[in-house]
Amino acid sequence: MISTAKASVLERFNAPLQLRDFSLPSRLESGAALVRTEMAGVCGTDVHLWKGELPITLPIILGHETVGRVEQLGEGLDRDWTGQPLLVGDRVTWTSATSCGQCYYCAEKNQPTRCPHRRAYGIGYRCDQAPHLLGGYAQFHYLQPRANIFKLADDLPTDSVIGAGCALNTAIHGLERTGIGWRDVVVVQGAGPVGIAALAVAKSAGAARVIVIGGPRHRLEMAKRFGADATIDLDELREPAARIEAARQLAGGYGADAVLECVGHPSAVVEGMEMCREGGKYLVLGHYCDAGPVPFNPHVITRKQLQVFGSWSSEPRHLKAALEFLGATRETFPFAAMVTHRFALEQANEALATTASWRSAKSVIVSAPSEAPGQPEHRH
Amino acid sequence: MISTAKASVLERFNAPLQLRDFSLPSRLESGAALVRTEMAGVCGTDVHLWKGELPITLPIILGHETVGRVEQLGEGLDRDWTGQPLLVGDRVTWTSATSCGQCYYCAEKNQPTRCPHRRAYGIGYRCDQAPHLLGGYAQFHYLQPRANIFKLADDLPTDSVIGAGCALNTAIHGLERTGIGWRDVVVVQGAGPVGIAALAVAKSAGAARVIVIGGPRHRLEMAKRFGADATIDLDELREPAARIEAARQLAGGYGADAVLECVGHPSAVVEGMEMCREGGKYLVLGHYCDAGPVPFNPHVITRKQLQVFGSWSSEPRHLKAALEFLGATRETFPFAAMVTHRFALEQANEALATTASWRSAKSVIVSAPSEAPGQPEHRH
Amino acid sequence: MISTAKASVLERFNAPLQLRDFSLPSRLESGAALVRTEMAGVCGTDVHLWKGELPITLPIILGHETVGRVEQLGEGLDRDWTGQPLLVGDRVTWTSATSCGQCYYCAEKNQPTRCPHRRAYGIGYRCDQAPHLLGGYAQFHYLQPRANIFKLADDLPTDSVIGAGCALNTAIHGLERTGIGWRDVVVVQGAGPVGIAALAVAKSAGAARVIVIGGPRHRLEMAKRFGADATIDLDELREPAARIEAARQLAGGYGADAVLECVGHPSAVVEGMEMCREGGKYLVLGHYCDAGPVPFNPHVITRKQLQVFGSWSSEPRHLKAALEFLGATRETFPFAAMVTHRFALEQANEALATTASWRSAKSVIVSAPSEAPGQPEHRH
Amino acid sequence: MISTAKASVLERFNAPLQLRDFSLPSRLESGAALVRTEMAGVCGTDVHLWKGELPITLPIILGHETVGRVEQLGEGLDRDWTGQPLLVGDRVTWTSATSCGQCYYCAEKNQPTRCPHRRAYGIGYRCDQAPHLLGGYAQFHYLQPRANIFKLADDLPTDSVIGAGCALNTAIHGLERTGIGWRDVVVVQGAGPVGIAALAVAKSAGAARVIVIGGPRHRLEMAKRFGADATIDLDELREPAARIEAARQLAGGYGADAVLECVGHPSAVVEGMEMCREGGKYLVLGHYCDAGPVPFNPHVITRKQLQVFGSWSSEPRHLKAALEFLGATRETFPFAAMVTHRFALEQANEALATTASWRSAKSVIVSAPSEAPGQPEHRH
Repeated sequence: MISTAKASVLERFNAPLQLRDFSLPSRLESGAALVRTEMAGVCGTDVHLWKGELPITLPIILGHETVGRVEQLGEGLDRDWTGQPLLVGDRVTWTSATSCGQCYYCAEKNQPTRCPHRRAYGIGYRCDQAPHLLGGYAQFHYLQPRANIFKLADDLPTDSVIGAGCALNTAIHGLERTGIGWRDVVVVQGAGPVGIAALAVAKSAGAARVIVIGGPRHRLEMAKRFGADATIDLDELREPAARIEAARQLAGGYGADAVLECVGHPSAVVEGMEMCREGGKYLVLGHYCDAGPVPFNPHVITRKQLQVFGSWSSEPRHLKAALEFLGATRETFPFAAMVTHRFALEQANEALATTASWRSAKSVIVSAPSEAPGQPEHRH
Repeated sequence: MISTAKASVLERFNAPLQLRDFSLPSRLESGAALVRTEMAGVCGTDVHLWKGELPITLPIILGHETVGRVEQLGEGLDRDWTGQPLLVGDRVTWTSATSCGQCYYCAEKNQPTRCPHRRAYGIGYRCDQAPHLLGGYAQFHYLQPRANIFKLADDLPTDSVIGAGCALNTAIHGLERTGIGWRDVVVVQGAGPVGIAALAVAKSAGAARVIVIGGPRHRLEMAKRFGADATIDLDELREPAARIEAARQLAGGYGADAVLECVGHPSAVVEGMEMCREGGKYLVLGHYCDAGPVPFNPHVITRKQLQVFGSWSSEPRHLKAALEFLGATRETFPFAAMVTHRFALEQANEALATTASWRSAKSVIVSAPSEAPGQPEHRH
Repeated sequence: MISTAKASVLERFNAPLQLRDFSLPSRLESGAALVRTEMAGVCGTDVHLWKGELPITLPIILGHETVGRVEQLGEGLDRDWTGQPLLVGDRVTWTSATSCGQCYYCAEKNQPTRCPHRRAYGIGYRCDQAPHLLGGYAQFHYLQPRANIFKLADDLPTDSVIGAGCALNTAIHGLERTGIGWRDVVVVQGAGPVGIAALAVAKSAGAARVIVIGGPRHRLEMAKRFGADATIDLDELREPAARIEAARQLAGGYGADAVLECVGHPSAVVEGMEMCREGGKYLVLGHYCDAGPVPFNPHVITRKQLQVFGSWSSEPRHLKAALEFLGATRETFPFAAMVTHRFALEQANEALATTASWRSAKSVIVSAPSEAPGQPEHRH
Repeated sequence: MISTAKASVLERFNAPLQLRDFSLPSRLESGAALVRTEMAGVCGTDVHLWKGELPITLPIILGHETVGRVEQLGEGLDRDWTGQPLLVGDRVTWTSATSCGQCYYCAEKNQPTRCPHRRAYGIGYRCDQAPHLLGGYAQFHYLQPRANIFKLADDLPTDSVIGAGCALNTAIHGLERTGIGWRDVVVVQGAGPVGIAALAVAKSAGAARVIVIGGPRHRLEMAKRFGADATIDLDELREPAARIEAARQLAGGYGADAVLECVGHPSAVVEGMEMCREGGKYLVLGHYCDAGPVPFNPHVITRKQLQVFGSWSSEPRHLKAALEFLGATRETFPFAAMVTHRFALEQANEALATTASWRSAKSVIVSAPSEAPGQPEHRH
């Protein structure tokens, strides 16, 4: 009988994560679940968290993109979010946060991702308080009552789910808000996980052409594998004006019907709006973190008659759609191939560093529970 | 037989307008019209034009808000935009610009206000070339073929039409793009003509409460006459943080469903977005002119999950709606009372100065054709 | 200590309701409440239920529009739906049904009114099983856990709330789905409670003109009190073709921008679509009951390029908006005046008959709890 | 010098078309063009026209789907609709009708396909009046001033354009109005040209699954070539209830997010609405002709909370999108393969009969101008 689990803990900003042991809960609350972690994605947000760029309280276990197998189910929990039976041993994933369903934003304004009661696994829970295991960089993960759990189809690889990560849900939500029209010409700013996901969603949502701006080169090559019709390499066109001109030309001369910002640098917003045609749409999707201000001229919004959208996180229905999409389009959008770098839990700091340096498309942590010491495939 | 018309001409930026004589056209083109000007509004944009803040070529006759009587009709012009018969002597107004109807923006993307072929009367036509009289600060106005002319209902005062001016059309278009929901709480930033018009349109479009932020005091009093549920005086709350807090409280604590920027200063955009509730809407309406950049953090758009809209000028159908609205709601929205300062054509510089100093709600120029020297009512 | 409550019970279709005594619950479930009924509206749906035209199981206590005072609160229930403190003695109303929040329709497709787990008070609960008191025609009403309870503002009369009844919520939801544009011309088919409510919502949502078609005359007079710009009397224009012609003329010649069906007879749908302009909107709102088929030519939908909307019941947020609207617009929309006929609980059959015969604008049942035998005002 | 052209003329309903000679215009109006016909599609509507089921005046030359080469250009016509240079010899197609751009429906309500001034080539013009040649079943076609002409890309086969025909434009417009959501499950009723086009547009607009209901079998096989995820054969499931059940199951149990009617029989509408999930969308697209009434219960629209859309014809921008789509997706959506039966102009009656009997996917008429007697490929 296992009674403790290892986890990689962020105790101080900008300092190495520490491997710690935590007690497993002796008893689950009604509606809760305990999951044996199989894979945790390393998200760019984890790097920001590690650097202290988001307002969180330490110590925490990082990891908000996780797949595992149900180890134990609390009383009354017998269905997943979609209504399928849920059993011990099922491979599952879940939304990182759960909205309350009853507040002003949930019930009245239909903005559940802005529910003030949300806290995200891997971000918003201290691990020095029970049930401790509320992040993905760990051997086990505790799922609280009302968690939105999704049983994974047998033929959907874990690599696909973690390769897509929260980026895909984020992109689905953001593009839903933006509304890609049939045969729209779309520019995606950024070729990281969110940019690649936005590309995939835009292509499958009816875009006639998608142009991806980013770097480094291996990411643009990944974008081409995902169907980018054209790419603009930041290392080749180093000036915003040159990129604006290139994007507009590639978009047919007038600019794109929709430009999707998946970068996170505020200057991208200034640059990207100029890539829109008049009356076009702009999505600010990459600004989950506060990267500070930039000189911006709001005249552009009036003059170009833009529609600008923001989108925060995602709802459970977006994760449901993401999982179905991943299963249905594995040939076209090879999200599993995004998992380029694998690490053991003990190597979490290397995993973070690889993500921070943009060397990987996606780094992941493959858990090796002590009692079942399988050899997780990895190359580091 | 009249053969010349006086006009007040902007020959050099920041220098007094000059009264000049121009030849009337000896013969109208097919589809054109000649109108004897009765009243021309002095718009805030005219002040910007005078200062050289918009990219125009001089000399021009200012005035893009005009009412007059048809003096002569070109061949084939016998109906107004709505299909009503049009006769010499009819009192009319018109859109300041005409879209081509056939370009990429007109025909394919349904953004006719961004038609590249548009030029606006009073802004975009040099007056040293025939037919010269393409602005409102003049005794006569030439209307080119395809102008969008509207015959005015007998019971609709000229003061209502000019009191509303282009601001009302602009607000109608902007609020159409934004979409005011039934029982929305709305904040209007600015109490000038555009702000007052946005207030009127928002109230009549279903807003539950409209809060107006602006000054000086006489403008806020005007806002109250137009039904503002609350006002915030810039002279009393001088700090953005205080105004944000006040607006949010007046809006019920979470912020407004929609915030409408009718100011033109870029800092208003930064301030105003913080007045939105999460998932709210923001309209950048006051930035017809380029007032330069401001430090702006795009994170707010993501974090608050905003929708931001820009809107440029207006379409003929907006003017049609405006005229019907003015006629139907004269008691509720006293646009005629906006005309607080009247000037003769010879006093155009004083009219401009009064608008520039925010002393008037709306200054107007009342033309006194030399051959019919009626006494225009004015107080300067 | 009260231990039983009287209720008027529908035991057999088309037979008189029977006054019965039911035990009050000895103990409330957590989250439940017991309310002392003050007023229950008699809805047209109650007449359909009484006639057996809806698929329900008897016996039931009718009444799904109710106001009462909190008698007792179950454990954990201390806030109303909006988050206000909830205390014994508070005057409250509630949604007739509660959605589950988790099913395919609630969580994935955002159609909570189509949640298969909904059952409505006064319609969907047998009263021969505890807790019995799940309808408004009774001295007490039991509110189950998760009921959507709204505390009423002190200055909002009970008559306003019941005068508006479920019709107002229904209209708010339906018009939200339809989307009334600013300055739209609207035709409302029907001058019963739903028609009057649709008129009020349309007027306050920006309609330029609202034309109401219905009868008998006293209902059209009520429509005029609510601001109808024109009315068409079914007793005067007895032929559909004549009404179509009249409505189109009153709407400006082309037909209405939106036509709102609030009748419930299928022939109204055929007639009403012809009242739409090309590209117009049509709302099928009155067909909560199945009134059978009608010969219908779908070519009209293609030819006129219509948008047709259905809307079922309402969400809690609509009730919240309704209560605020009632409070804010009492002068303009005198819903309290809809309560034209009052009955004691013992007179429930007369109340139903009055509604069935269209003699009342709205009949209500005023409860007279046995231990507090105040004299409810009524005239029958 | 050619001075006459042969055309196949509908002189009496239900009687054979007659081959007649017409004078070519001696001189083109400004802005007009003369085109040498290369291929004309035989649309199902042509069969309805031939049977007298649409309100037209005879004699007419049928054919509203046409490709040809510019023979002569009127003064001032030097650009196609997209702004490309237009020269004699260019291969072109065009919209069958032109809206006025200025009426209530064109300019005020943005419903140009309902412009009362539209008349369609091949439908609405008598050929016994000059310029006679206003239909596609002819050696030459006259294009009036303001016709919406599109130069065809060199690599876009004429077969693709005519194989898609007006059906594709119609589907694009209809699906634009309906709005296919990303990952929607869609049912298409009908496997004729409109159904196949709707399938192609739905797939490319983001549908997760498209289920096609129709027959005969060769049409369902064509649907599979176009990517149908499942088909329901009318010859196998002969009862509406069985088809409804099958469609709902194939759509996941609840019904489809959107059902697209591309049949033209009114009973399909009754059947199809039951295939929608609650809150789903229904498009009435196949009812260009009036096929009479059907017993219909509008309760379904309320109960299922449906949105129902009609769509009439298409706008020039839809044809532009169609041509780009055809060029970009020739592998995925083999519209050229729809052209299964080719006929000479002299065989127009056989072409009509083949279409009427549903033997062809698409029948076409290949013109063989007398002076260039090439051997048009055909198999009849």
